[in-house]
Amino acid sequence: MTSISAAQTRLHRHREQFPALANKTYLNYGGQGPMPQGAMNAITQAQTYVQQTGPFGNEAYAWLTQEKQAMREAIASQLQAPPETITLTENVTVGCNIAMWGIEWQPGDHILLSDCEHPGVIATAEEIQRRFAVEVTTCPLKSTLNTGDPVTVIAQHLRPHTRLVILSHVFWNTGQVLPLDKIVEVCGDNNSLVLVDAAQSVGLLPLNLPELGVDFYAFTGHKWLCGPAGIGGLYVRPEVRDSLHPTFIGLRGITVDSQGKPVNWQPDGRRYEVSTSAYSLYGGLTQAIAIHGQWGTPEERYQQICRNSNYLWESLTALPDVQCLRTSPPESGIVSFQLTQSKPRIHFQLVQFLESQKILTRTLADPDCVRATVHYLTLESEIDQLIAGIKKFCHLD
Amino acid sequence: MTSISAAQTRLHRHREQFPALANKTYLNYGGQGPMPQGAMNAITQAQTYVQQTGPFGNEAYAWLTQEKQAMREAIASQLQAPPETITLTENVTVGCNIAMWGIEWQPGDHILLSDCEHPGVIATAEEIQRRFAVEVTTCPLKSTLNTGDPVTVIAQHLRPHTRLVILSHVFWNTGQVLPLDKIVEVCGDNNSLVLVDAAQSVGLLPLNLPELGVDFYAFTGHKWLCGPAGIGGLYVRPEVRDSLHPTFIGLRGITVDSQGKPVNWQPDGRRYEVSTSAYSLYGGLTQAIAIHGQWGTPEERYQQICRNSNYLWESLTALPDVQCLRTSPPESGIVSFQLTQSKPRIHFQLVQFLESQKILTRTLADPDCVRATVHYLTLESEIDQLIAGIKKFCHLD
Repeated sequence: MTSISAAQTRLHRHREQFPALANKTYLNYGGQGPMPQGAMNAITQAQTYVQQTGPFGNEAYAWLTQEKQAMREAIASQLQAPPETITLTENVTVGCNIAMWGIEWQPGDHILLSDCEHPGVIATAEEIQRRFAVEVTTCPLKSTLNTGDPVTVIAQHLRPHTRLVILSHVFWNTGQVLPLDKIVEVCGDNNSLVLVDAAQSVGLLPLNLPELGVDFYAFTGHKWLCGPAGIGGLYVRPEVRDSLHPTFIGLRGITVDSQGKPVNWQPDGRRYEVSTSAYSLYGGLTQAIAIHGQWGTPEERYQQICRNSNYLWESLTALPDVQCLRTSPPESGIVSFQLTQSKPRIHFQLVQFLESQKILTRTLADPDCVRATVHYLTLESEIDQLIAGIKKFCHLD
Repeated sequence: MTSISAAQTRLHRHREQFPALANKTYLNYGGQGPMPQGAMNAITQAQTYVQQTGPFGNEAYAWLTQEKQAMREAIASQLQAPPETITLTENVTVGCNIAMWGIEWQPGDHILLSDCEHPGVIATAEEIQRRFAVEVTTCPLKSTLNTGDPVTVIAQHLRPHTRLVILSHVFWNTGQVLPLDKIVEVCGDNNSLVLVDAAQSVGLLPLNLPELGVDFYAFTGHKWLCGPAGIGGLYVRPEVRDSLHPTFIGLRGITVDSQGKPVNWQPDGRRYEVSTSAYSLYGGLTQAIAIHGQWGTPEERYQQICRNSNYLWESLTALPDVQCLRTSPPESGIVSFQLTQSKPRIHFQLVQFLESQKILTRTLADPDCVRATVHYLTLESEIDQLIAGIKKFCHLD
């Protein structure tokens, strides 16, 4: 046996909290993160507690208020943002929709999207285009993965009436990390708001949203944060809150008078929240965030993610039949690659084969490739297993 | 000991499945229904299964697709509607918002609300009024609880440009059941669409939505159906689907081409669904619906609810210090009442006192009253305990 360093022992112990990691090689954190057992226990306990106390009454309501606040604070801590800037949502896409529909569109306004955005966001932009006669265009950032400067491309595509620029912080297909601070500066100079799809960045990158200066940052708890599916959030920069109107509206977003009639929006991020949510899951996300903190700071986790993705990228690059989309080491936990033989559906077949070997990755449509994602939780031996699986599929072993 | 009938024995056994009912007198089904243990177990099992299989991969996805379909079918069975008419949502209010924002409003259009609607729906109507220059008015249905005809009142308040009428099927404050079939007829003759807030009717009334002819019916699984908080749905009449555009949009609502680009809406109720939800809870609602079915049909459950609410209403009516809002026996499980001494905050104090005695009810702001709700699960002895609690509070015992 080789000697195992203290850090490795610690990681192995830490991983024992994640049952999903015990019986497979999990490389789809970008799809959904594995939940720690402690987070699942928190959910079961919440269910039990609610039934014991209520489910509905003053005591249950007080508990619920606490759960919401604890989760809002836990999320806020990961973004280095004040808790009152956070709106709790169901997922990333709802957060994007809140920002996109909340702007008072005028005919002739312009929305600029990158060419790597999620289909849900594209479809929303197209519906807004249809309803309010705004223009929607796309700028080519996918091709800046290896050469070129995304900031310059965006600057070239801004128009005088660009009201909103929509970008992912980390591209879900190529793993590219956009220089958001510089982009925000360029967009701000043009009076364009910036909405960030943060599906792949929250829980992956160390973040400081007030410093970044973004206007809207929509994220989820069930990917890199390893919380339960069905909980996400939206950060809205306090300075733009009053100009972003709630669209889907409910009791959680408003204040009422003594007759129960609506009188105003909630003063903070709650104004975009609607009504009853899957509250029993809230403790699960709070707990998941705490468990990551036990291993390391967001900065330490990101460093470890990069070590892992570098090792993966190097190992893939060394394979004769594989081409990584990136020609230099990745800056995120996302590593996408293609098999050089261009048989139709070859990537789908590879992913299917890998899943049969208990190695979980996914295909992407554009660019046509396979995506493997590594977290700080990933072991080098898991990366070695993926490489062995690919070799086996390509008959290289 | 008095002899217990077979039906009572059966109900007592059935109730044992609901842990919330074991340690209190629960009379707030209209707030949130207690979950059966089997439903909670289904959630815990789903969490475990997902981690074992995925959480994300082809196998996990196939399971998820099944869970969604099973829940959609379970819900549809309660509405006697085809599963493809059902949109899965987070709660009632989101369903109302989908219907309200999906109409292509023209300046001068008119929205008619009853005066018993939920603040979230009122606030949404007011925001739509502001954004699209439509008119919003209210018709007085609260006063038809005991005398008068809601159909006539609505007919009198319809205008040539009334595009949408928004009503609750069962009023959350007074428990009145509206004659929806007749209302739909009157509104249809005026080319007005009908959106029903079904928060208090799904799981309470036996329903046949295609027969009722309503256009939009928004409901939740966590009240009378006793499912987990955070799952609801919206029925959209197939004939109006194509004219109701999705507003909040995501991958679940669209079809994509081979490049992953949006090409169309889903052909059915899924078009209004957005993205990742609290999928682990889906089996909980499916299971809760199945457990109700083990006790009786929707019709049998409704008859039992009415027996219980009649007993409650009669018992309250017999108290000297209490006045029920209704002067005749209730048609739903909701029984609202006032104490005749008009001290400020007296109803709040009563509810607090009752909660200290482990009897859960709630106050309402308009009309200022206490609301007790009874399900088919309610025992006569629980109603007796509420009456004893009120007597104690009023020093009548």
